[in-house]
Amino acid sequence: MIVVTSNKTSQERINEIVRYIEKHGLSAHVSMGEDRTVIGIVGKFDSQLAEHLRQMSGVEQVVRISKSYKMASREFHPADTVIKIKGVEIGGSELVIMGGPCAVETPEQIDEIARLVKLAGGQVLRGGAFKPRTGPYSFQGIGTEGLKWMKDAGEKHGLLTITEVMTPEYVDICAEYADILQVGTRNMQNFDLLRKLGTIQTPVLLKRGFSSTYDEFLNAAEYILAGGNPNVMLCERGIRTFESYTRNTLDLAAIPVLKSLSHLPVISDPSHGTGRRELVVPMTKASVAAGCDGLIIEMHTDPDNSMTGDGVQSLFPDQFSDLLADLEKLAPLCGKTLNTRKEPILAGSWKK
Amino acid sequence: MIVVTSNKTSQERINEIVRYIEKHGLSAHVSMGEDRTVIGIVGKFDSQLAEHLRQMSGVEQVVRISKSYKMASREFHPADTVIKIKGVEIGGSELVIMGGPCAVETPEQIDEIARLVKLAGGQVLRGGAFKPRTGPYSFQGIGTEGLKWMKDAGEKHGLLTITEVMTPEYVDICAEYADILQVGTRNMQNFDLLRKLGTIQTPVLLKRGFSSTYDEFLNAAEYILAGGNPNVMLCERGIRTFESYTRNTLDLAAIPVLKSLSHLPVISDPSHGTGRRELVVPMTKASVAAGCDGLIIEMHTDPDNSMTGDGVQSLFPDQFSDLLADLEKLAPLCGKTLNTRKEPILAGSWKK
Amino acid sequence: MIVVTSNKTSQERINEIVRYIEKHGLSAHVSMGEDRTVIGIVGKFDSQLAEHLRQMSGVEQVVRISKSYKMASREFHPADTVIKIKGVEIGGSELVIMGGPCAVETPEQIDEIARLVKLAGGQVLRGGAFKPRTGPYSFQGIGTEGLKWMKDAGEKHGLLTITEVMTPEYVDICAEYADILQVGTRNMQNFDLLRKLGTIQTPVLLKRGFSSTYDEFLNAAEYILAGGNPNVMLCERGIRTFESYTRNTLDLAAIPVLKSLSHLPVISDPSHGTGRRELVVPMTKASVAAGCDGLIIEMHTDPDNSMTGDGVQSLFPDQFSDLLADLEKLAPLCGKTLNTRKEPILAGSWKK
Amino acid sequence: MIVVTSNKTSQERINEIVRYIEKHGLSAHVSMGEDRTVIGIVGKFDSQLAEHLRQMSGVEQVVRISKSYKMASREFHPADTVIKIKGVEIGGSELVIMGGPCAVETPEQIDEIARLVKLAGGQVLRGGAFKPRTGPYSFQGIGTEGLKWMKDAGEKHGLLTITEVMTPEYVDICAEYADILQVGTRNMQNFDLLRKLGTIQTPVLLKRGFSSTYDEFLNAAEYILAGGNPNVMLCERGIRTFESYTRNTLDLAAIPVLKSLSHLPVISDPSHGTGRRELVVPMTKASVAAGCDGLIIEMHTDPDNSMTGDGVQSLFPDQFSDLLADLEKLAPLCGKTLNTRKEPILAGSWKK
Repeated sequence: MIVVTSNKTSQERINEIVRYIEKHGLSAHVSMGEDRTVIGIVGKFDSQLAEHLRQMSGVEQVVRISKSYKMASREFHPADTVIKIKGVEIGGSELVIMGGPCAVETPEQIDEIARLVKLAGGQVLRGGAFKPRTGPYSFQGIGTEGLKWMKDAGEKHGLLTITEVMTPEYVDICAEYADILQVGTRNMQNFDLLRKLGTIQTPVLLKRGFSSTYDEFLNAAEYILAGGNPNVMLCERGIRTFESYTRNTLDLAAIPVLKSLSHLPVISDPSHGTGRRELVVPMTKASVAAGCDGLIIEMHTDPDNSMTGDGVQSLFPDQFSDLLADLEKLAPLCGKTLNTRKEPILAGSWKK
Repeated sequence: MIVVTSNKTSQERINEIVRYIEKHGLSAHVSMGEDRTVIGIVGKFDSQLAEHLRQMSGVEQVVRISKSYKMASREFHPADTVIKIKGVEIGGSELVIMGGPCAVETPEQIDEIARLVKLAGGQVLRGGAFKPRTGPYSFQGIGTEGLKWMKDAGEKHGLLTITEVMTPEYVDICAEYADILQVGTRNMQNFDLLRKLGTIQTPVLLKRGFSSTYDEFLNAAEYILAGGNPNVMLCERGIRTFESYTRNTLDLAAIPVLKSLSHLPVISDPSHGTGRRELVVPMTKASVAAGCDGLIIEMHTDPDNSMTGDGVQSLFPDQFSDLLADLEKLAPLCGKTLNTRKEPILAGSWKK
Repeated sequence: MIVVTSNKTSQERINEIVRYIEKHGLSAHVSMGEDRTVIGIVGKFDSQLAEHLRQMSGVEQVVRISKSYKMASREFHPADTVIKIKGVEIGGSELVIMGGPCAVETPEQIDEIARLVKLAGGQVLRGGAFKPRTGPYSFQGIGTEGLKWMKDAGEKHGLLTITEVMTPEYVDICAEYADILQVGTRNMQNFDLLRKLGTIQTPVLLKRGFSSTYDEFLNAAEYILAGGNPNVMLCERGIRTFESYTRNTLDLAAIPVLKSLSHLPVISDPSHGTGRRELVVPMTKASVAAGCDGLIIEMHTDPDNSMTGDGVQSLFPDQFSDLLADLEKLAPLCGKTLNTRKEPILAGSWKK
Repeated sequence: MIVVTSNKTSQERINEIVRYIEKHGLSAHVSMGEDRTVIGIVGKFDSQLAEHLRQMSGVEQVVRISKSYKMASREFHPADTVIKIKGVEIGGSELVIMGGPCAVETPEQIDEIARLVKLAGGQVLRGGAFKPRTGPYSFQGIGTEGLKWMKDAGEKHGLLTITEVMTPEYVDICAEYADILQVGTRNMQNFDLLRKLGTIQTPVLLKRGFSSTYDEFLNAAEYILAGGNPNVMLCERGIRTFESYTRNTLDLAAIPVLKSLSHLPVISDPSHGTGRRELVVPMTKASVAAGCDGLIIEMHTDPDNSMTGDGVQSLFPDQFSDLLADLEKLAPLCGKTLNTRKEPILAGSWKK
């Protein structure tokens, strides 16, 4: 249910409406727009209360949200959600770049990559310590120690960090070390994990299930929001289709669709979305042109020897740096800004 | 790695080979066939040991398994796996019928349905106490209490029970109450759940992810097997395609494919596989003709008022009973047997 | 639009209604059922005429068909369509088996295969003279001469013949030589071809497009029916999905769905539907259990050397013969009959 | 087969090699690059001739093309193909915009839309006179007369024209009136149509089948090229997936993939690729960022009353004009140029 106020309603009056809602045991989420203010209401609602609200001064409309998801919907929260973490704003005017290896491998590896991500102009360091793998005999990640190495690298180079969490019991430990927690594509409907993430305030990057509809995706986000954590970003990472030349089919229409159905920031993952290094550059640019708020891109100093075998989709540091320089020019045409280093990273100028 | 012995090798000699393998810190899984015996070996293998084994008397071949899954493969275990639970054999000559509601709703409901499943000739009672739901505001299941009601109903009517487990921390409690644990389609790659299920001996029915390949499916089973639980059955439950008339596309070719690639029992779920009551009967028969070892079928005494809204794919008890009577005739043409009640369940003869 | 008469309406009265309809420039299609008779009406309909019909004695209802396809729908023609060709009835109680090679190669090859199809109990000889091929450098079929060889072989051995037609201009020549014309999966929406097929009376086997919905499939059939050719059979031949182990995913639910939405006979093609010889036998049986009216199965005397490279999905003659013997037992459980030879075809008993 | 010459080989020497190839009954296609020249060879090739060519002065390499398509491949023709039509270059530095209605409806409609396409900065007028429709009772297009109206409108306003051709027998009449012939998604594998288009020189825009792989797409192009018509452009128009919110899933990775595998120009169709007006603008920009050579966009003066019902995906003229103004700024960042009108088209300034 949402309450819409006219654009002349005073802040004081809005506060009164909010207090009235809360007095009835419901919670209110205020979203200020230029023309009007929307108050989203969560909780059991009776028709008498709706009628009362409708008649309050300053209230224009009381509207029921018809979608299966509520708090994730644009109706509930018309303004864009901007997630602020240590000076980085995700969902605002900044184009946010998350870069790094598929997996944390050694302290030296993650430190060197962090240096390069920062140098190129990125804001967030990605890296997996716990890896979801198709088979039980593949490398499953370094584990907790990897989290520490990544935290150290992030702090040293002035980057936020993001890492994947796979199971409810590891949420707390991952949240201790990382600034953003990632839910992988195979776990988009791991509902107990989503519920657990709703109980904390650490921002969550939720990847779309590789065969999930937009509706299912937003309902998965709703699990986290409904639990009490408003800091959710959505990530398009490619869907499974009949085409096998690419690892997945990156569904870029998802970006404007999700931005219209929801207020949450939308991130694109062109690395998993294509599975081929040579496609990461054009698909990153296309993602920005389609209106994404940020990107998560695999970059590795020695992709041919990566421990997960995902190196085939990782950019080299010089490619990553050149790409960001291109994005710096492209972003302003798409309502975003990005500030990169002015010196390119030269091929071979890094430690493997 | 597998060791193949000739058909003249004595049991004693086979025991010696097994002891030799175990002495080197590996585990051996013996699979007796009519013509030859295959010993599957798990653990780190060095080439010198392989050479030694190759030269042992009675050994015909030492072969490396080339697939990414090992213990789930037919090469590793040529004979069909038969899972025996309190007199019911899954994967053998018996056609196993699992029937019941989507969700356990009340003690009376599950008791009445158990009575009807037994009367019709089924061997296993299905019912969910914890339900994976697309959105957080849908009915999420009765919880632990439902497990108890189902256990009581199963014991009273002489049926095994199967229920879904959604998260590692609930595995133990579910295993306490149910004879078989089900992993749902959205959790097929919930690797921490699979790992946990590998640590117990309770049989697991693993549903295929609705967009998972056969290879990914067998790798998911491998997680459980590799953990030490050999009692895994595979369940085809429909895949997601462009066709929206049916809820899913039941991929019946999966049955003979999985039976050829693996030794594990294969179950078919025509209820979720079609999402339409009128298709459950023909697709059940087609599943049996395609060679499945059993079926899991939704049946409800009052499907129009089911708590999950899945009633649209549930059979009425009389339809369920008539279907099993048909299967009794069909099964022998497909190498299986089924014994049903001789009296049909009449429409309206049950308590809603 | 359909007119429904009560079960007491006399034949004479029905004739009068039909004459009345035809007098208004429309055409009437009578479908007799046990309880009631349905008269399907084709042509521009005005509401006044509908009102008149509604008031005629013997008329129970005048109903508008809401689906986009009309003549293909069950509402328009409640009784099953049975297509009769030289003593073979497709869509009736007979299970119809169409067997033969992917492509006609030589007169000797098609003659020998015809002999084996007949010996095994089949009624129709399949074989392509014009082949749709992905690339221009692949074998494109023998051409018109192949049609003659096949006609001769069919007549000699007492089999009907079916062959693919790819373009409107070849419809007449193909119809001169073959008893049934096949529209391939890539041509399901070749609307000019469908229109041309509507102008003749030769029966048409229309294959489902490999990514077409049921609705699109029935609309394609409607093109032929609306043109004036009522002799259409529908063929499920597998759809394209993410799974690449099989060539296609044979969607067996299509069989009961199409039988319920439409009155047209439904044929299954387990050869293209799986692309693997070892899956043809189980998927043929499953097709019969799902309720199909017939099968089209690739069989070849020398599949490893077939000219199209499709041999990998062709049965050997002995497998084909054994399969039909199994179907003879299975069919009666599914409301069908099949009479096969009593002697099996022995491996190696044929000319390559 | 291709012959590669060193960058120092004189033009004269290249001519001699070409003459040598032609003397042996083969045809040679010369593609000049900065560093080297590649001569693609078509025809039956014997190993002796290959050996001779390898030893000729100026020849560096003789290489067999391993792909199933030859003339469509980058190996055969390393330089981009640029198709020149009356001063417009498709595949070169110009970003080519094709705009117009789904169907030609009246002379006035197509004239007014042509005026607006030109005014906004487009180079090509699109419009269908023959429409492929799912069902036989839908509007099938105006027919030949529509071709004339469109030709007149194109000539009057200085635009090229493109129209769809559905069957071989209409190729000649369509080529008489239109500058570019379009093959629709359902006809991508209408091989007789492709063969016919290979016999003329009119440029062809080949749309990707909605469930066709890149490999099948390039093989379809090969049919036209192999027939003798080198003027083929490829069009990505969305593929069919499980997602039903959009009409299709526009696969933008197809753009860089096709540009790398082939030398043919690549056009994007964001209208059919999304099926929703509000997604056309972001997906057009994303297409340009991904590297396309041009766009085909539906624009209509009165989309709510379009005769095909496709208006829901058509832009209004002012939206079309604003979009092109944005592309004028975006194109230079993607290696392209576009010159548009300097005055925007104002809402309501056109005739309905």
